[in-house]
Amino acid sequence: MLFLRSSDPGFEKAFARIVRERRESDEDVARSVSRILGEVRSRGDEALAEFTARFDGHSLSQDEDWRIGADDCRAAYDALSRDLRDALELAADRIRAYHEAQVPADRDYRDEAGVRLGARWRPVDAAGLYVPGGRAAYPSSLLMNAIPARAAGVERIVVATPTPRGATNTLVLAAAHIAGIDEIWRIGGAQAIAALAYGTKRIAPVDVVTGPGNAWVAEAKRQLYGVVGIDMVAGPSEILVIADRDNDPEWIAADLMSQAEHDPSSQSILITDCEIFADTVADRVGVELGMLETERTARDSWNDHGIIILVEDLAEAPALANALAAEHVELAVADPEPMLDAIRHAGSVFLGRHTPEAIGDYVAGPNHVLPTGRRARFASGLSVLDFMKRTSFIEADEAALKAIGPAAIALAEAEGLPAHARSISARIGL
Amino acid sequence: MLFLRSSDPGFEKAFARIVRERRESDEDVARSVSRILGEVRSRGDEALAEFTARFDGHSLSQDEDWRIGADDCRAAYDALSRDLRDALELAADRIRAYHEAQVPADRDYRDEAGVRLGARWRPVDAAGLYVPGGRAAYPSSLLMNAIPARAAGVERIVVATPTPRGATNTLVLAAAHIAGIDEIWRIGGAQAIAALAYGTKRIAPVDVVTGPGNAWVAEAKRQLYGVVGIDMVAGPSEILVIADRDNDPEWIAADLMSQAEHDPSSQSILITDCEIFADTVADRVGVELGMLETERTARDSWNDHGIIILVEDLAEAPALANALAAEHVELAVADPEPMLDAIRHAGSVFLGRHTPEAIGDYVAGPNHVLPTGRRARFASGLSVLDFMKRTSFIEADEAALKAIGPAAIALAEAEGLPAHARSISARIGL
Repeated sequence: MLFLRSSDPGFEKAFARIVRERRESDEDVARSVSRILGEVRSRGDEALAEFTARFDGHSLSQDEDWRIGADDCRAAYDALSRDLRDALELAADRIRAYHEAQVPADRDYRDEAGVRLGARWRPVDAAGLYVPGGRAAYPSSLLMNAIPARAAGVERIVVATPTPRGATNTLVLAAAHIAGIDEIWRIGGAQAIAALAYGTKRIAPVDVVTGPGNAWVAEAKRQLYGVVGIDMVAGPSEILVIADRDNDPEWIAADLMSQAEHDPSSQSILITDCEIFADTVADRVGVELGMLETERTARDSWNDHGIIILVEDLAEAPALANALAAEHVELAVADPEPMLDAIRHAGSVFLGRHTPEAIGDYVAGPNHVLPTGRRARFASGLSVLDFMKRTSFIEADEAALKAIGPAAIALAEAEGLPAHARSISARIGL
Repeated sequence: MLFLRSSDPGFEKAFARIVRERRESDEDVARSVSRILGEVRSRGDEALAEFTARFDGHSLSQDEDWRIGADDCRAAYDALSRDLRDALELAADRIRAYHEAQVPADRDYRDEAGVRLGARWRPVDAAGLYVPGGRAAYPSSLLMNAIPARAAGVERIVVATPTPRGATNTLVLAAAHIAGIDEIWRIGGAQAIAALAYGTKRIAPVDVVTGPGNAWVAEAKRQLYGVVGIDMVAGPSEILVIADRDNDPEWIAADLMSQAEHDPSSQSILITDCEIFADTVADRVGVELGMLETERTARDSWNDHGIIILVEDLAEAPALANALAAEHVELAVADPEPMLDAIRHAGSVFLGRHTPEAIGDYVAGPNHVLPTGRRARFASGLSVLDFMKRTSFIEADEAALKAIGPAAIALAEAEGLPAHARSISARIGL
């Protein structure tokens, strides 16, 4: 863990390095991903089966090896404990309510020149959701990706998920049942993203690929951007907690660990204005770590990437937060509103002492798929907009074309595009 | 020009090939772009000056060689003919009116569980607009990129534009004056995109890069996606005209040529249900070509990529249009409304006989930067949203956390994330 004081002479330099040091895509990963994409593109299902045998130890020989059926998902759902079933349903309901209200309104109006203008939002035809296997097989992520796609009106929603040595994740299957997904392929990694984007004999291509994944999955999405739409290039998870001394150090330590336990490359940062509080939180992190089954991951993350920044005044915090543009920002202060107003770049903000970030991971309603690695400067969390696109339209009659056409003709001629001018002048007799 | 009949037995196969054959990024271009990006990233302005000397024949030795000043833009504006000035102002006013209404509303509400939820849209801090030099130096493109950025509230808007052998384009400068741009760098190509994304000693980095460009520019944007936000990966321009026999063949031929004259790789497609009309349009294209200064480009485009598809019934057209997902779609029929309803994938649609696509390039108001190469399946035209991002927020008090927290705890524990559960249970005494 790195401890910085904003009053130290070297602070600006040290902080600038933290901002700069966001890990980028690895050249070796890029090359091997590019090879995998090429193989799946040219050899389709055959390449998919080879990679799945090699990376997941799962054989795709029989037809039934390829997919997980709707029956399996229903059975997984039925087998859940009452508590878990209710928890998943509550999460789904709240995510649905939040995202359904995101569907944008169409426009259609006639302006004073008599030109009809507008735009229509339509869902993509097909969306592919990646659900990681292994450590990061989260039913909550399936809901966070599938429900916005459904709210957008996407007709075909496909899940790709690796099943290492054939093992499926009951909770993920139950979540698929709740989200009404009935096309689930047992494939993972870059090869799964390639299959979704290019399509194979078995798997029809999709238009948008979303969902979290490891570095290979993220790089595959990056390379296929443009062939399909993607939600974003995701990196390691991050939390920035801005907390005054009046917080319970135990709560804040738990919040920092809630990111740290995700992955050794996750990053937890605390900004506070009280050195005693900072020290107490640091001590309490040690206690929390000892309580966690995820101790090893959380400890590695905290040791390698954890940061505590001691500021003279919390008024310094928003500028630091804007430079970090973190995925999650907690404002654990009595009156978070002015600070929220001052924060321009963040994936999601958690206000006040009783809003731990984890509540947003599961049941609050807003999406937990958020921009990482300073991308909140320009990117937003996943929403129904990622599954929709807008078509503008224009309608002129002869009078309207006569009103605005001459200006277009003048500009087309000035730009050296005479056929553009012709297409207007022919219609209005100029 | 390729002539296809939908009733021919080979049609489906031939049409599928057209849909598939969208040109993709070239591996040689990708490699040399990657090299250029690396050079600018590590050597900054020095590398920029070398590439600008080599590719643009423009020397960046003195301070004043680097930038075009606001005075030059004002002078260019003042020197315009009255007609052209009015035309640019009309275009700017109409583009502004259309885009200002796109600014999305924030959300902020408390739901029945007592949780406050919402989202705020904020502009990016800085946007970089690429304006090509040479053949495609269009003042209209500058307006189409700068005005949405301005409407989004972006404070710093930067233009990068190559000035081959030092030559500037008066119209582009005048448009910059209208759009209020005062930071213009005389750089182009992949090196300009790298400078905008990474920043150099002279040029502060931006958060989003938009604007058209050649294959190098498009590939540079693709490779830098994630380091900065980008509008889209743009390919050659396209038009699909759906026209019945009651159109004036001259108008339709002019429309087809208005795309063809952009670039030899542009594509113009006509779908009609009348063979005589198809033949007349094809003949008329020959006449139109002879009238154009852009004849050579337009002829190459039409010969190599032009297509006429004769259908039995125009009711077949929407399915073909959806498969093509073209950048521009004209519906030159008496009642375009039902066809508009049936078209799910298109960048922009032009309704009726008096709405040539060129009106949308200049003065209609909607953006002319639109998805090409079938990307309208998942992408939208440029808008204020490309210059903004959304931060969600969540606020719970103790009662609200008690209401929804237990479900989150159950899910966190089931996902094997105990610190997530701890951060909630510590607060509600579970």
